[in-house]
Amino acid sequence: MTETTDRYGIVLVTAPSERDAKTIARGLVDANLAACVSISAIESIYTWKGEVNEDREWQLIVKTDLTHFDRLEAKVRELHNYEVPEIIAIPIIAGFEPYLNWIGEQCRPSSH
Amino acid sequence: MTETTDRYGIVLVTAPSERDAKTIARGLVDANLAACVSISAIESIYTWKGEVNEDREWQLIVKTDLTHFDRLEAKVRELHNYEVPEIIAIPIIAGFEPYLNWIGEQCRPSSH
Amino acid sequence: MTETTDRYGIVLVTAPSERDAKTIARGLVDANLAACVSISAIESIYTWKGEVNEDREWQLIVKTDLTHFDRLEAKVRELHNYEVPEIIAIPIIAGFEPYLNWIGEQCRPSSH
Repeated sequence: MTETTDRYGIVLVTAPSERDAKTIARGLVDANLAACVSISAIESIYTWKGEVNEDREWQLIVKTDLTHFDRLEAKVRELHNYEVPEIIAIPIIAGFEPYLNWIGEQCRPSSH
Repeated sequence: MTETTDRYGIVLVTAPSERDAKTIARGLVDANLAACVSISAIESIYTWKGEVNEDREWQLIVKTDLTHFDRLEAKVRELHNYEVPEIIAIPIIAGFEPYLNWIGEQCRPSSH
Repeated sequence: MTETTDRYGIVLVTAPSERDAKTIARGLVDANLAACVSISAIESIYTWKGEVNEDREWQLIVKTDLTHFDRLEAKVRELHNYEVPEIIAIPIIAGFEPYLNWIGEQCRPSSH
């Protein structure tokens, strides 16, 4: 087991369609900002301008190195058509060491 | 990016039916105890009185301000028909600032 | 509400089939290394040997006592056919006290 210090984490993002979800997921993986992204269908219930809404959405769970969170946030915003998308980071506090190392190796975005 | 200090979080709750899940989700959003609640179908495997059970359930992921956790817990218990429901909080340690602000604005339960 | 100190947590594991997911989940519950495991279908997008892959997988969310993480990790690896499976722990920082106590009571693996 590896005790981690908030370096690794999962980032939750929601998207309005499966196609958008896959575009964002592939964009993050291609840019080496995510080791793996899982996608699943959800129903979202929320208030918008005083009305309770219920929408079909897709949940992305992004396994990543949070050192690059600012660049991950920028990439999601670039690919997302919501003005205020969900982009929230949750800490991984322990894990199977080879898997955590794999996350670290995959998340090496080029410097530009 | 905003570094947060455990103010914001996600709360996991499970419910026995989609209808119950939506009742709880709407109840939390209506009471300004959640900005958004996502719902999805799961299979749950657990032991109850020495027997391994496998049940269809619905997972709620509640995006909220953990300052109000006690009131959120009370509201879930009020709306839930389990005696000991899952109500567990996980920290958000970083996030897209306008989204975190939106959570803060939505989670302002009236004082009574 | 109970303020917890990282004793309790959720552990995320992915598996290649529903059958494998249930085998791992039952194995953890039987060995008293998990109070409850939820399973749901996901699409995973990741890079493997330079290629972006898209696979159907199953997500396990294991509700557990992280004091036993090393034994949980060993049990998952024993039951899993991936060489480097996802086994990552996320902290529960607050919860409904009877539910947290239930997790504690269920997660008492025998000493051998």
